[in-house]
Amino acid sequence: MHIHIENDASGPLALHLSRERLQQQLDAHPKLRSHFTLTENSDPAQTAPFLANCDLLWSGRKLALDAFSTPRLRWVQVMSAGVEQWLAHLPKGVTLTNASGVHGDKGAEFILMAALMFNFGIPGFLQDQAQRLWRPTYGGCARGKTVLLLGVGGIGAAAAKLLTAQGYRVIGVTRSGQCDADVARCIRIDAIDDVLPQVDVLVSTLPLTPQTEMLFDRRRLDLLPARAGIVIVGRAAVFDYAAMRENLCAGELAGAVLDVYPQEPLPADDALWNTPGVVMTPHCSLDDHSAYLEGCLEVFIDNLVRYRSGDPLRNQVDVERGY
Amino acid sequence: MHIHIENDASGPLALHLSRERLQQQLDAHPKLRSHFTLTENSDPAQTAPFLANCDLLWSGRKLALDAFSTPRLRWVQVMSAGVEQWLAHLPKGVTLTNASGVHGDKGAEFILMAALMFNFGIPGFLQDQAQRLWRPTYGGCARGKTVLLLGVGGIGAAAAKLLTAQGYRVIGVTRSGQCDADVARCIRIDAIDDVLPQVDVLVSTLPLTPQTEMLFDRRRLDLLPARAGIVIVGRAAVFDYAAMRENLCAGELAGAVLDVYPQEPLPADDALWNTPGVVMTPHCSLDDHSAYLEGCLEVFIDNLVRYRSGDPLRNQVDVERGY
Repeated sequence: MHIHIENDASGPLALHLSRERLQQQLDAHPKLRSHFTLTENSDPAQTAPFLANCDLLWSGRKLALDAFSTPRLRWVQVMSAGVEQWLAHLPKGVTLTNASGVHGDKGAEFILMAALMFNFGIPGFLQDQAQRLWRPTYGGCARGKTVLLLGVGGIGAAAAKLLTAQGYRVIGVTRSGQCDADVARCIRIDAIDDVLPQVDVLVSTLPLTPQTEMLFDRRRLDLLPARAGIVIVGRAAVFDYAAMRENLCAGELAGAVLDVYPQEPLPADDALWNTPGVVMTPHCSLDDHSAYLEGCLEVFIDNLVRYRSGDPLRNQVDVERGY
Repeated sequence: MHIHIENDASGPLALHLSRERLQQQLDAHPKLRSHFTLTENSDPAQTAPFLANCDLLWSGRKLALDAFSTPRLRWVQVMSAGVEQWLAHLPKGVTLTNASGVHGDKGAEFILMAALMFNFGIPGFLQDQAQRLWRPTYGGCARGKTVLLLGVGGIGAAAAKLLTAQGYRVIGVTRSGQCDADVARCIRIDAIDDVLPQVDVLVSTLPLTPQTEMLFDRRRLDLLPARAGIVIVGRAAVFDYAAMRENLCAGELAGAVLDVYPQEPLPADDALWNTPGVVMTPHCSLDDHSAYLEGCLEVFIDNLVRYRSGDPLRNQVDVERGY
């Protein structure tokens, strides 16, 4: 059985999986050694013949697979959590597994930080600081405040654990209204409107699917109270950024801590850069290059064992759901 | 026995203790009811006769007691944690108890937030945002990083608990090198120089005493690595702010999250307002007006019971140590 590794030549070397490294991992595993042959490529001009001859694919870059001939391909392991671009081009019969969970630890810390920043009014104080204004406010503790956590997958579940431990009341939101994560309660995604007026912090870890696209349109954003802060670390297209910006400018939201944007890099002339209350990080806050490849590889090795045993794969994307 | 309540007319009403409220608390307590008479004042012109006739004083404002005649006064309960201004004017034989611990919960949350902000490079990204620069960095988790926690009193101990739970390696610093708080280890304040080069986050909750004044002079600030962030929530005079500012401007520190300043309110022309990497809150981040009076009153009632039983008081300031 042949595994092809496709690396992203334009990406950082820390995220390249070398054939040697994978071979080492396979050799170290009693159930995997001597079962696989390997190739590795990072030159897009050479990709086609590799894809034509592999059974399994590890990919560090996005590929529109339907543009290639992939007669033997059965399973693709990708290094991202979001997969909407893969799904749009996935040949029938090919299984897709993603890197969900690998971002969990760092993502959860980022979300906790952002929630606390709202509690301490940091977005507002940054504006005061820019205007050299001394305007103290004496609010309460974060403990007891309400976080609405959209999406309780790898990142969301890790965030729920930290937020709950910190005393936040966490309401999880999932498609089914069920989750195993450490939340006070869990509701269905189509029942959020009733809860929005109670929210202190809205956190989105949602993937982009037909159901989530523009979920937070102007109408839903208007249901949030003026004290609410928004944290977006999932896909940007879940939110109407223009409407969010208007609400921030009007003082109808307390702030937004954002890691993702409708267009990336965010164009230099975008009005978001200096919108009041916006704290921006450039789509990097969940990624830990020192640990990311290792985390993805751990998922892949575990999945190779499952694949050989015929067990269900971890992180298998449900093509219908879209994540 | 007579208790006088001195309120601060210029302060918020939420921090005024009314005679009725204290009376209610006394009446509700079997060991305290019918043992005390009460007066209340917030007019500085009327303070002297009240002080001349009380045995115990609750004070919501700073008083230079040596300027008054206080023949019967035995004990003062103050609403602040820092007491250097009280000590400079304390008559011999008068016991001073402070509000140490009342700031703990909110202070600990603030410190955790600030530590996380450094981990995610927020001070640097705020500068990039102001210049509309997209420059991602892909660092690791906060877990495992080193926090040097100067002062392990009420706020410090609460912060140690949260930081340790979050996976930080917390090194406590006390006068004695001992503490009961949740730290990886504790060192003496005169042994910090060796540790400074390892620090990711330096947090000061220190009171102002002869030993702490200008403890962080230029020499000690220069021992911190360029990756280090500084969080100051104790007394400002522990730090050489001018030297800290120079190091921030030179990129020799990652940032500073500050709640206290050499002069407050910070003058509008102070260079600190727009120093790179500085995130400022106007001396309010540890104060929770909705819970603060209640917290102080809880200390006072507990102390009244101890006083009547002849037990050692809680939060008694050691005049020699200065806190």
